[in-house]
Amino acid sequence: MNGAGEILVVGLGPGPDCWRTPEVSAALERATDLVGYEPYIARCPERPGQARHGSDNRVELERARFAINLARAGRIVAVVSGGDPGVFAMAAAVIEAVEVDETARDLPVTVMPGVSAMQAAAARLGAPLGHDFCAISLSDNLKPWALVEKRLRAAAEGDFVIALYNPASKARPTRIFEAFDLLRSLKAGSTPVAFARAVGRPDERIVVTTLSDADPSIADMATMVIIGSSESRLIDRPGGTPWILSPRQARGGAA
Amino acid sequence: MNGAGEILVVGLGPGPDCWRTPEVSAALERATDLVGYEPYIARCPERPGQARHGSDNRVELERARFAINLARAGRIVAVVSGGDPGVFAMAAAVIEAVEVDETARDLPVTVMPGVSAMQAAAARLGAPLGHDFCAISLSDNLKPWALVEKRLRAAAEGDFVIALYNPASKARPTRIFEAFDLLRSLKAGSTPVAFARAVGRPDERIVVTTLSDADPSIADMATMVIIGSSESRLIDRPGGTPWILSPRQARGGAA
Repeated sequence: MNGAGEILVVGLGPGPDCWRTPEVSAALERATDLVGYEPYIARCPERPGQARHGSDNRVELERARFAINLARAGRIVAVVSGGDPGVFAMAAAVIEAVEVDETARDLPVTVMPGVSAMQAAAARLGAPLGHDFCAISLSDNLKPWALVEKRLRAAAEGDFVIALYNPASKARPTRIFEAFDLLRSLKAGSTPVAFARAVGRPDERIVVTTLSDADPSIADMATMVIIGSSESRLIDRPGGTPWILSPRQARGGAA
Repeated sequence: MNGAGEILVVGLGPGPDCWRTPEVSAALERATDLVGYEPYIARCPERPGQARHGSDNRVELERARFAINLARAGRIVAVVSGGDPGVFAMAAAVIEAVEVDETARDLPVTVMPGVSAMQAAAARLGAPLGHDFCAISLSDNLKPWALVEKRLRAAAEGDFVIALYNPASKARPTRIFEAFDLLRSLKAGSTPVAFARAVGRPDERIVVTTLSDADPSIADMATMVIIGSSESRLIDRPGGTPWILSPRQARGGAA
């Protein structure tokens, strides 16, 4: 086989099927092969004749190369991420694999956006990302921890709302404590903080608190942590966790 | 009528229906009333008996109050944004309107996430948001320009990829030039830059260039501007604009 192969880099959204775009559903339907981290593959509808290549979550580049080889052999390969493939997920690995393999440059590669975890978390919380924000992965598997610290400092200096991806894992249980220690030295204790775990799944758990009261030990691999700006505020509501509002109107600005 | 009213804060995604989540499609189906900026309302499927309340784009809070009043009268009101309602869109206005009106606190409000414009732009560009990034609105309608400058400086200092929303409008034609002047004083001229206009629509236009070569005058209200980190790089491909890769692996870190 040859020529007809292609790569579709798709994102399933954070949890339930109702957050998966029709574009991605159609791509999963059309693909001859699915490639991705096993739990994401398990979320794709079964289709007779479709090959499902599940892997663990530590071999992104290898997985991307495998997808390229399948596509080069004429297969239509969906590379599957949770959330949005463009945000801390497989799009970067696929593009990097195309970069290092010049013979892959003319393979058709289509990236399809999806709802990312911070957006699902934000929806549950009201409007914590309603104003300027940044997204930082706390994983130092592929970057020095000093760079994470530099970015946390800059995010505090710029008074951004901060969304933390990958706050903790079994291999990195303490980085979230270091991040909170740093942020507590730079931001007000009253700053709203949310831990949004497994949003959209049966074991969803939302905790809304403040920077001084937060217990970072509740963050795990499935948790999105959101930390407000100086303008963010908590709004009590009956029968639910408080909303977090990062208002459209901001007063700050003195450099 | 009373009691049964509710507010569904929904995002249509950036352009075509294939980027609208099934959750949002079902909400549009269920709503008795649609409230939103007229061009977004026009993108919703017509349904007999459904009231469509289109408005211009400068009265978010008034629109939110109007939705609350409808819901209080027992209507099921979908408040419609393009993109993700949580990202520079109607979620913040609705939560703010609930905050100032205590009698609205027990109205059921559900925010439903969507694909935001930066994600659609990123999908076309390869993987520009593949690493830590921030999102900044250049509009100074509701915040002082000094705060925008402070955040641009902090974003450069933290070496984030930067996604600029609302880069220019008829009322604010020059802010994008000021932003580029500032960023050129802080970042390398070789930094990849993209202007992604009307992504997913028939008049989509993608320009990929560098910070020193960029012409900010091509940015308008429908344009997303993405500016790389020091690690971001351009990757040529046959028959298309270059990919932008912000790689998963980062070297930087010295404070």
